Amino acid sequence: MIHVGILGATGYMGGEALRVLLGHPEVEIAWASARHGGRMEDYHPNLQGCGLQFVPPEAAEPVDMVFMALPTAASISLARRYRDAGSRVIDLGAAFRLAHRATWESVYGMGHDDWALAEEAVYGIPELHAAGIEAANLVANPGCFSSAAILALAPLLAAGWVDPRQLVVTGISGTAGVGATLSRAAHHPEIGNNLVPYNVVDHRHSHEMEQELAALHGSRVGVHFTPIYAPITRGILAICHAFPLAPFTREAGLELYREFYAGQPFVKIVDAQPRGEEWDYRPWPWVAATSGSNYCHIGLSVDDRRGRVVVFGALDSLGKGGAQVGIENMNLMFGLPRETGLGHYARHPA
Amino acid sequence: MIHVGILGATGYMGGEALRVLLGHPEVEIAWASARHGGRMEDYHPNLQGCGLQFVPPEAAEPVDMVFMALPTAASISLARRYRDAGSRVIDLGAAFRLAHRATWESVYGMGHDDWALAEEAVYGIPELHAAGIEAANLVANPGCFSSAAILALAPLLAAGWVDPRQLVVTGISGTAGVGATLSRAAHHPEIGNNLVPYNVVDHRHSHEMEQELAALHGSRVGVHFTPIYAPITRGILAICHAFPLAPFTREAGLELYREFYAGQPFVKIVDAQPRGEEWDYRPWPWVAATSGSNYCHIGLSVDDRRGRVVVFGALDSLGKGGAQVGIENMNLMFGLPRETGLGHYARHPA
Amino acid sequence: MIHVGILGATGYMGGEALRVLLGHPEVEIAWASARHGGRMEDYHPNLQGCGLQFVPPEAAEPVDMVFMALPTAASISLARRYRDAGSRVIDLGAAFRLAHRATWESVYGMGHDDWALAEEAVYGIPELHAAGIEAANLVANPGCFSSAAILALAPLLAAGWVDPRQLVVTGISGTAGVGATLSRAAHHPEIGNNLVPYNVVDHRHSHEMEQELAALHGSRVGVHFTPIYAPITRGILAICHAFPLAPFTREAGLELYREFYAGQPFVKIVDAQPRGEEWDYRPWPWVAATSGSNYCHIGLSVDDRRGRVVVFGALDSLGKGGAQVGIENMNLMFGLPRETGLGHYARHPA
Amino acid sequence: MIHVGILGATGYMGGEALRVLLGHPEVEIAWASARHGGRMEDYHPNLQGCGLQFVPPEAAEPVDMVFMALPTAASISLARRYRDAGSRVIDLGAAFRLAHRATWESVYGMGHDDWALAEEAVYGIPELHAAGIEAANLVANPGCFSSAAILALAPLLAAGWVDPRQLVVTGISGTAGVGATLSRAAHHPEIGNNLVPYNVVDHRHSHEMEQELAALHGSRVGVHFTPIYAPITRGILAICHAFPLAPFTREAGLELYREFYAGQPFVKIVDAQPRGEEWDYRPWPWVAATSGSNYCHIGLSVDDRRGRVVVFGALDSLGKGGAQVGIENMNLMFGLPRETGLGHYARHPA
Repeated sequence: MIHVGILGATGYMGGEALRVLLGHPEVEIAWASARHGGRMEDYHPNLQGCGLQFVPPEAAEPVDMVFMALPTAASISLARRYRDAGSRVIDLGAAFRLAHRATWESVYGMGHDDWALAEEAVYGIPELHAAGIEAANLVANPGCFSSAAILALAPLLAAGWVDPRQLVVTGISGTAGVGATLSRAAHHPEIGNNLVPYNVVDHRHSHEMEQELAALHGSRVGVHFTPIYAPITRGILAICHAFPLAPFTREAGLELYREFYAGQPFVKIVDAQPRGEEWDYRPWPWVAATSGSNYCHIGLSVDDRRGRVVVFGALDSLGKGGAQVGIENMNLMFGLPRETGLGHYARHPA
Repeated sequence: MIHVGILGATGYMGGEALRVLLGHPEVEIAWASARHGGRMEDYHPNLQGCGLQFVPPEAAEPVDMVFMALPTAASISLARRYRDAGSRVIDLGAAFRLAHRATWESVYGMGHDDWALAEEAVYGIPELHAAGIEAANLVANPGCFSSAAILALAPLLAAGWVDPRQLVVTGISGTAGVGATLSRAAHHPEIGNNLVPYNVVDHRHSHEMEQELAALHGSRVGVHFTPIYAPITRGILAICHAFPLAPFTREAGLELYREFYAGQPFVKIVDAQPRGEEWDYRPWPWVAATSGSNYCHIGLSVDDRRGRVVVFGALDSLGKGGAQVGIENMNLMFGLPRETGLGHYARHPA
Repeated sequence: MIHVGILGATGYMGGEALRVLLGHPEVEIAWASARHGGRMEDYHPNLQGCGLQFVPPEAAEPVDMVFMALPTAASISLARRYRDAGSRVIDLGAAFRLAHRATWESVYGMGHDDWALAEEAVYGIPELHAAGIEAANLVANPGCFSSAAILALAPLLAAGWVDPRQLVVTGISGTAGVGATLSRAAHHPEIGNNLVPYNVVDHRHSHEMEQELAALHGSRVGVHFTPIYAPITRGILAICHAFPLAPFTREAGLELYREFYAGQPFVKIVDAQPRGEEWDYRPWPWVAATSGSNYCHIGLSVDDRRGRVVVFGALDSLGKGGAQVGIENMNLMFGLPRETGLGHYARHPA
Repeated sequence: MIHVGILGATGYMGGEALRVLLGHPEVEIAWASARHGGRMEDYHPNLQGCGLQFVPPEAAEPVDMVFMALPTAASISLARRYRDAGSRVIDLGAAFRLAHRATWESVYGMGHDDWALAEEAVYGIPELHAAGIEAANLVANPGCFSSAAILALAPLLAAGWVDPRQLVVTGISGTAGVGATLSRAAHHPEIGNNLVPYNVVDHRHSHEMEQELAALHGSRVGVHFTPIYAPITRGILAICHAFPLAPFTREAGLELYREFYAGQPFVKIVDAQPRGEEWDYRPWPWVAATSGSNYCHIGLSVDDRRGRVVVFGALDSLGKGGAQVGIENMNLMFGLPRETGLGHYARHPA
């Protein structure tokens, strides 16, 4: 059994780690922390009757594996503390996601207090960095939009099929992405029947996308990214437009993706077939079909007439875009099959 | 391993049985049927990449356990067929829910073609009929509103604390309760920002409530039931008003419920405590906290001033109010712990 | 032209008054106040480009008509100030809604600093108190749930057709009812797919219902009221159960309501007829059909079998349940036709 | 008074024309047609109690002005009939939107039976074609996405500030855009917590965008357009990415837009200012702020680092993107101020 601790488990990201780890067959939750302690079910009503208590942070002893869902500055110092005490650490936040210090400091608007530690961190997309993650003591779990867009664009960039400087990504996010802290953009009377653009240029996640896609492509890439909030609870849909350097068909594109992700348990290439008049599903991913799960669904189409490919990446911002991919990374770090504790399908209807 | 078949697995109820049974450790799905066959993922987009096919109904051979999610008339004849071939059967529909033939025929507006079989059926609320279910060859799974209201009112009726003739129940249902068949009341432009009363008197489920609560109380009861659709995907909230014969306090009421449901794994008595200004949860159930799970959350308050108790029963119409309680019943029928394959908490946020 | 001021116009109630009065042909908005002043469009994005500014409260001079959308204590002292300066006042809040001081002070948990003023106030339901409102200097606009339940039950109580002690009301509210102040129950990730009971016994509005229905009936009445939040933006549905003293038919009930509300421009008795398979509307009110308007839709059914009548009252908590009925009251006070500036139908779809 | 008829008034587009025209001070509705006649309130529950009846199509006599909300083939023949009888006609559908016959026939997959009539039609964007609309006998009302994207991009193309071949537009639509006909993609259990791509390449509206933007720019343009359904009832958000030929600032961009749309009553350039911690609105358009109205809200930002401008166009698909802009066009055709009957702000909250 892996003994696991979760730092900051009252929010949505830590709460999702907690929920999924409670059902993980190889994990024993040693503790989950909250500033003021208290019953878990008073923060997470889904855990009604679980009988468990949060511990205050000072009672959070080093264990085999520590998940951190904390503000950035706290993550940096606590990652060091647990790392030095022998714990392996997965940061569900943003403290260690970028490989260049100057970029990180400019994007986050603060100095980084432990760059030596940041240099140890492995970026936690298991489809791209499995070997590194297996050996890592510190994993930087990716941003939710980053996972969706990187998984959706990786095969095209790795194959060199599209113009790397003109990647245009619209990201639509559910309100779980806002987090548990109250805000006007997530106040139901405002967002319940609305669509809300935010941080529309230079969003922090666009730097992760550029970092990872450039590494795959071997040269600099430009990701033009715009995020929008929509009134769904969970889920991210990345709508990725790219421009082929030479024409290819939809079928060739799907084949490229199927090969790139062959053997990957959590990426599914969608090519749905309508089943008559009532079951007229279209052949592209639905966000709801990934909701609550660790799956990423990818689909694409090609506009021959105008020379564009559009790729959709759908996932749950707390699932494959958050806490669950963190658990997939933990599985890798401890030599378990990646699916352990994670193989649940989303619900239908969601 | 239990070999299981699902008749009618393209709809939401059969689809939920399929999804949960795919993760059940003691079950092998022998087949799931659909009129025109086809890939499961073309009906249930959450199953993307599962590689499974529906079989046409004629290929649905008798197996250990058959779940039926079919129109009423079809259920009656097929239940007989599988029963006679040695399968045990759980009907997720309404063909066998009422114990009195004349009532059934009046409520469903049709003759019942196999009342001898109906007399064998056990009504599938495990908190009330566990022994009967263990021995049953045919279980009639309860209606979704019925489960919510019966579980919410059972302790008060069994204890004789309230007037049995004045039970007033408002039931709010998500649109999964409408089913997969398209209808105006579930067309998003109409329901997306709306509340819609329907079948507001003599709803079929009110007869189930009266049957079960009368049996607990030992005399006739009157359930005044009104259902409303609300724009949530899953979930049922039964708001049950009853009138105490003698005053009791909220704490006494909660204690009555805790004792009545002691040892029951899937009924949770809610008494949430606010955790400061931002985490100002109120001490009553949230539908979302049960969504996708087999839990029923119950909470109550007493209005001293006016002599009323209000009890809330929250569950998922496809979970504890549908396919998942069916699987709980199957566990009982095959001597498994009731939690097998079912112990997942709902998500938070939903 | 009536010169109108709005105190507290950044919230939803004051904002709705502002929006509707901007289109009122007999009104000139003298000012609308906000603590920190500023452009109206920075609080109300629907007013984009209107070019108008809030004034700070100290610049809010007495005018013909003052609407107040303020915290209770502030309402009491400011109502006095404007009243003494010759303004007529409509309080959109709760400071003057109850006729008995002891009840008010117990319900609101505070002393009332100007009960002499409270005794001048007329309760602002124009269908019941038109003459009083015409002559009033101070109108107490009703609570949103109160308007829905009182309008839905008034004809039955006035006619003496039902047991006055057993009125059971479930009220479902959209999140606009929470107000503009951020709260967990209105945080989209929590409420977006949820149903949330709150203040489930002795809600303040139940005292208004009892006060008004008792006056109509001529004896004490008991209203058993439970409110629930649902994920719609606007709208209130009051589901009112009552028990006939002697049987009557649905048609007789509808006729009673049509007569009671004959000549009332904003109460509509619903008896929708389905128009074939696709347009299968049911004969009861839809909340969405009143949303944004000053209409209240009422419908009913009778359960012969069990002796119950259920009456639905649907309205918009900011419309007929809030700011718009306030404007209807203003029209009465200034001798204008009640429909002036208010006759817009809700949208379809909403 | 203008005597107006509406052909096909049971759907959402015709119903919106009907609702708004009922409040238009210079219009008398001569008739609104429905295949089977019947009470208006049985199709449009918002019109409860209006007392009006639909007429069958054969009773729809020529009048001053005819709005058509019909299937494409029917529009072509009926437009001719009413035109020849002296009526002026606004087609709310797609029969006359494209200027090149071969393109129209390829896009709509059918022959056009009356191209001579199509050549008379004026494309109904009043900000671009006011003079033509004033004189027109036949106006082709634009597609909903087309209006949003064309208004959002017009100033940049007219000014020649961006690369005309790389316009990348993501369009998010509410489900009113699906129409009143039932479909799986609009079934609430499916879409209620979902995001659904559809017609992702070569959507019909992209041809309108290219036609109008090319005319403004003076050379061919390429619009790469992807539509997505989101669970809002009304509203379109066009997220338009373009690539500056020479750098410009956000302020310069806003100024370009303010000048281009100076004097236009229904286009508002958004530059919201947050008002403290709770009122933290961001400076871009909200769909909800246009919902139900004839306003289009436009906002933009510039990503200096990567050389991109993103422009947002928000409107209501039945309002400025549908029936209401049709009424604005009618006002122009009959010499009325464009705002007549249309100047209502959207609600807040929506």
